[in-house]
Amino acid sequence: MEVQVAVAKIEKYAVGESGDTVEVVERPHGGVSIVLVDGQRSGQSAKSISNLVARKAISLLAEGVRDGAAARAAHDYLRTQRGGKVSAELVIVSADFETGSIVLSRNSRTPILLQAEGEWRLLDTMAEAVGVHARTRPCIEEVPLRPGVVVIAMSDGIWTAGERRGVGIDLLSLVQSFPLTLSAKAFADDLLAHALRHEQGRPGDDLTVVALHVLGLDVDNIRRMNLTFPIPSRIYGTWD
Amino acid sequence: MEVQVAVAKIEKYAVGESGDTVEVVERPHGGVSIVLVDGQRSGQSAKSISNLVARKAISLLAEGVRDGAAARAAHDYLRTQRGGKVSAELVIVSADFETGSIVLSRNSRTPILLQAEGEWRLLDTMAEAVGVHARTRPCIEEVPLRPGVVVIAMSDGIWTAGERRGVGIDLLSLVQSFPLTLSAKAFADDLLAHALRHEQGRPGDDLTVVALHVLGLDVDNIRRMNLTFPIPSRIYGTWD
Repeated sequence: MEVQVAVAKIEKYAVGESGDTVEVVERPHGGVSIVLVDGQRSGQSAKSISNLVARKAISLLAEGVRDGAAARAAHDYLRTQRGGKVSAELVIVSADFETGSIVLSRNSRTPILLQAEGEWRLLDTMAEAVGVHARTRPCIEEVPLRPGVVVIAMSDGIWTAGERRGVGIDLLSLVQSFPLTLSAKAFADDLLAHALRHEQGRPGDDLTVVALHVLGLDVDNIRRMNLTFPIPSRIYGTWD
Repeated sequence: MEVQVAVAKIEKYAVGESGDTVEVVERPHGGVSIVLVDGQRSGQSAKSISNLVARKAISLLAEGVRDGAAARAAHDYLRTQRGGKVSAELVIVSADFETGSIVLSRNSRTPILLQAEGEWRLLDTMAEAVGVHARTRPCIEEVPLRPGVVVIAMSDGIWTAGERRGVGIDLLSLVQSFPLTLSAKAFADDLLAHALRHEQGRPGDDLTVVALHVLGLDVDNIRRMNLTFPIPSRIYGTWD
């Protein structure tokens, strides 16, 4: 019985710096939260915005602040810091071991894919991005933390991949065609690969997928984290 | 060309809460830092100490503060908060893409295993834990970020596994016997498995391994993160 979390991300082609930020934090009363922020525009300026919003949300979650309050605070903070002139899409995915639930908090036009009780659905109610308007609040969905629950959150680059060329992906049909037993890693890697293919390997936007899967199988009691960070060419270019 | 990071951890037998904390943060000028904190004692009190120290170090690193200064600040913070009465072992492992180096910052009696230029060595100079004495500072080691560099940091439970039964592990010989091509994940999982075996599956202390491996092979440019969190029995006990 474990919660699997997987993130796969790549930056917009030839930009070198993703404007998406993903951070993970252990919840002080048990469980884990993943914060995904897609900053307005791309490159360095988007990165600094998404970083600011993610750090604020993460630091509050780490102190035990509830998800909805953390999202509101991150909004207020960005709006104060940047005078309401820049926006960011913010999603918080939490496996809360205190309440035994999965909590999804969206300030984003990009939907979340959710599989619960054997059925996939799209969480796509209108949810305002953070940073601009007064009193913005998140759309929150909560489902019991049960075996088989899968959550897939993404930046809008994934959702709209291929659209400029008129070959958008129907992601709901796509995930419905996947075996239910896929690991979180397989969900994240497959969706990113699909989006990359639809962008012919040169994405016109930052692409980030976050997948969470509640596994009902008995496993060892070991907590694991594995990351890979591509090394920029300015570093490996100096190797002999 | 990528940096692989792997963490494997399990709590002391029958305690249910690990006193070790590991957090990862992206460095604002490029690269990644892993913070490992082993709080004094075990269980809830150790967890709150290690969490406090890790959060302070992580938030400073996220703001671009250099590793040595972050370690000093985390020390001062714990010492102020707890009146110098509790200690924590703090290790910061960084892949710094700004300087092109691996930076190892130790405030811990537990050594770090480092493979650089094809040779394993033990970083075991005396390094004071944080939180107690005035003006504590870290032992810092810096090596070029080059293919084949491997770093293994651990909590003292790994280093002393089996010692109570008089069957300690010689970790330096152990890693020297491993193939150089092991992934970070394999290093972390293998070392944790060794320690668990030496503790007969019922560890007398929290066990945490952090491994970092610089890979010189050409890979895709995708950044990945994968985590697994065991679900506590108080949650899955309610499942049908």
